[in-house]
Amino acid sequence: MEIKQSPFAPKSYPELPDIDGISIFAGNAAIKYKNRPDVFLAVLDDNTSSAGVFTKSKTRSAAIDWCRATLKNGNAKALLVNSGNSNAFSGEEGIKAVEESMQAVANLIGTTAQSIYMCSTGVIGVPLPYQKITSKLDGIYKSGKCSWQDAALAISTTDTFLKMHSIKIGEITINGIAKGSGMIAPDMATMLAYIFTDAKISSDDLQQMLSEINEQTFNAITVDSDTSTSDSLIAFATNKKEVDKQKFRNGLEKVMMNLAHQVAKDGEGATKFIEVEVTGAENDKAAKKIALTIGNSPLVKTAIAGEDANWGRVVMAVGKSGEAAERDKLSIKFGELLVAEKGKAAPSYDEEKVSAYMKNQELKICVDVGVGNGKAIIWTCDLTHQYISINADYRS
Amino acid sequence: MEIKQSPFAPKSYPELPDIDGISIFAGNAAIKYKNRPDVFLAVLDDNTSSAGVFTKSKTRSAAIDWCRATLKNGNAKALLVNSGNSNAFSGEEGIKAVEESMQAVANLIGTTAQSIYMCSTGVIGVPLPYQKITSKLDGIYKSGKCSWQDAALAISTTDTFLKMHSIKIGEITINGIAKGSGMIAPDMATMLAYIFTDAKISSDDLQQMLSEINEQTFNAITVDSDTSTSDSLIAFATNKKEVDKQKFRNGLEKVMMNLAHQVAKDGEGATKFIEVEVTGAENDKAAKKIALTIGNSPLVKTAIAGEDANWGRVVMAVGKSGEAAERDKLSIKFGELLVAEKGKAAPSYDEEKVSAYMKNQELKICVDVGVGNGKAIIWTCDLTHQYISINADYRS
Repeated sequence: MEIKQSPFAPKSYPELPDIDGISIFAGNAAIKYKNRPDVFLAVLDDNTSSAGVFTKSKTRSAAIDWCRATLKNGNAKALLVNSGNSNAFSGEEGIKAVEESMQAVANLIGTTAQSIYMCSTGVIGVPLPYQKITSKLDGIYKSGKCSWQDAALAISTTDTFLKMHSIKIGEITINGIAKGSGMIAPDMATMLAYIFTDAKISSDDLQQMLSEINEQTFNAITVDSDTSTSDSLIAFATNKKEVDKQKFRNGLEKVMMNLAHQVAKDGEGATKFIEVEVTGAENDKAAKKIALTIGNSPLVKTAIAGEDANWGRVVMAVGKSGEAAERDKLSIKFGELLVAEKGKAAPSYDEEKVSAYMKNQELKICVDVGVGNGKAIIWTCDLTHQYISINADYRS
Repeated sequence: MEIKQSPFAPKSYPELPDIDGISIFAGNAAIKYKNRPDVFLAVLDDNTSSAGVFTKSKTRSAAIDWCRATLKNGNAKALLVNSGNSNAFSGEEGIKAVEESMQAVANLIGTTAQSIYMCSTGVIGVPLPYQKITSKLDGIYKSGKCSWQDAALAISTTDTFLKMHSIKIGEITINGIAKGSGMIAPDMATMLAYIFTDAKISSDDLQQMLSEINEQTFNAITVDSDTSTSDSLIAFATNKKEVDKQKFRNGLEKVMMNLAHQVAKDGEGATKFIEVEVTGAENDKAAKKIALTIGNSPLVKTAIAGEDANWGRVVMAVGKSGEAAERDKLSIKFGELLVAEKGKAAPSYDEEKVSAYMKNQELKICVDVGVGNGKAIIWTCDLTHQYISINADYRS
């Protein structure tokens, strides 16, 4: 089966700048992929702050447990990522694979294993053949620094394009790379995302910003409602340059939002990028639940794939969310077109106009549920034949 | 697009017997379907008990509100069902459509509108053109009693086969008909199901049985996690013949279970029928949530469609359910084959054997989450290209 590239893939990739205090390396350990980098190593200067958000899955991988411990230790010296095997649900052997990999990196760069993060992505249930990584580490390190594009490639799996973004805030830089395409749902949504900056910011401040912004970005996208066992978002700040905290926060939000949108746009089989905005809910949490119920509904997603102005399915999804909604005050807009209000089709509803709107590649659905002031926005993609092809045939 | 018939469609339909005290009629009102019955009318003798369970959707149809009121009135004289338009989210006009239809039936059979149930299924958001029904009612009534097969056909929409089942308990009969294929998820799962019996049983007893059994039958199946705005399960007992209460309950359960399985087997695009059994959960409710999370996971369902022994996706689904699960005690069986135990692949795991098992049309997945004694069983189907074809092209 041929996997088609997402129509949202960029024509070319941006060249991300170096970050003062961070050296990046990539290489091939042939864990699953043979002719491309599948190992990414970031080595961090002393005094680098770090923060992280990890999957809430009860069947999280051994690497996730390791990262949580590293995060507590508070001293980040390196990050190791491999693709091709998630080392999740791999028992004692899986734990050993993390420990051995971390010790190998520690020996390589002269630090302690407890100050290194590790993430693995790929098939679940097979212990990571860590010797493939540890035997190659020295060579990868000595081959010299890699490009950010190589780094983004090394962490990717079924992605049809690489997710990278960078911004400048005065002197400082924020780089981000992410991977993710299927098994995408909040808690966390990304599978893997990494943020690197030379800004001076404490681990506590970075963690607070990361957790807050995460709710409106990576935790507000969904592809298929499924949650990975390895989802991780980690940020590193090398503390090289002073920055205004609010300006930094705004920049961080821009990078995270951009990467989150890229992940939804590369949702398996995606042909449409959809923004769902819910207003008038009991509170913001209820609004998000309604928005995600719409965004996860197979019937809504297939209607959009078919460019069918079937707004009745949006009504259905609101109804099943379990959150308070006033049927007879409900209003729905597709883009700027009012399709329903006061519990029925809008008098101005013009199916031809709405059908024309559905042909757009980027769509917006706005729903007001008529109860209170809660609001939320989430992003998702449509559900197409290509999703079935990828997931019925692909052994992840 | 050609809609393929479910591989689970029966070779022929059973002939359901008459029920003492119930007269059934069917005919065409051309609401959407032109060459088949789309209206079903059941006229009930005096002293008929009734019970019902209805969708919990916040955007339920006007007919659902009407049925709830009839249920409270406690006196059932008739049931009117139409297919081709669900009259959901149709505002004041929708309410009027129900009132006018009910008054027309009341006039026809000489009773009050408040003792009649109404159900509508089909497109959401278009007021029911009730005149099409009311103008035809007299003719349908005078054309004489219909067969149960006509009744099952009249209530169907995207169903690829008719769902009927009947059992005898001594002298008494329980007949059931159901429809449903997409937009199938608990609360309620069926879209529409009707049970008819000549047994002597009070409305209160019938309601208690119906509600309890519903949890293990119609509320334990899922096709696509979407919830209809019109789901209704209604039971009628004409009180003609004495019956042992426990025996009746057992019989009722058999009919409801059989119909629920038929609905899952006719899930849009289904090629596999899947039983998911969860044991070892914190309690039964938690077990059901885990089982439904597995049964609703697009990644689990596509793996099964592809006959891929990808049990890692079951691990993922357990993890995302949010319920307590001990990763390192988790065990998973596909049929009788142990694939994972103690948090990793089972030593006896033989991918070839499991792959061979996946070729069966009926599959069983057993998961023990190693926490407590809670257990639950749910039924679902796989997710195939045909589901996308039906829902991306079909304007419901």
